[in-house]
Amino acid sequence: MYVLLVYDIKEKRVGKMLKLCRRYLNWIQNSVFEGEITEVKLKEMLAKADAFLDLEEDSVLIFKSRSQQWLEKQVVGLERNRLDTFL
Amino acid sequence: MYVLLVYDIKEKRVGKMLKLCRRYLNWIQNSVFEGEITEVKLKEMLAKADAFLDLEEDSVLIFKSRSQQWLEKQVVGLERNRLDTFL
Repeated sequence: MYVLLVYDIKEKRVGKMLKLCRRYLNWIQNSVFEGEITEVKLKEMLAKADAFLDLEEDSVLIFKSRSQQWLEKQVVGLERNRLDTFL
Repeated sequence: MYVLLVYDIKEKRVGKMLKLCRRYLNWIQNSVFEGEITEVKLKEMLAKADAFLDLEEDSVLIFKSRSQQWLEKQVVGLERNRLDTFL
């Protein structure tokens, strides 16, 4: 399935979350990731995140779609993952 | 259509963007909004944003779906808009 993940996490834990998400999804903006992932792999990722997140302070939103074709993406301004390719 | 909007904007312009987005969509997390909006209203909003955004530094991602039913939402941790209702 296609997943869009957005997190809002306290600064001290952001590095860990970024590293974790990059292993499972593609980075598209500051705290936004997307990609094809199985339900099992997503659960695995969230279990790992759960180990260090503070659920009283942090927030992770996940939007799931059976297929990316149901979502049309529009970018205004900087497209981070294009830049990222060259870094 | 259903729209999910995520922005990554330099701090000095964040207040303006927040205020603008709140007039058209529902706030769900730090820099994330969602809601039902027409193509015309979305264009109107983006034209207003374009007037103050710096497209060399700022980034706005918009995901559009004909219907919200194609997206399943999962929240881990804090759900901001619930809190927001009481503020």
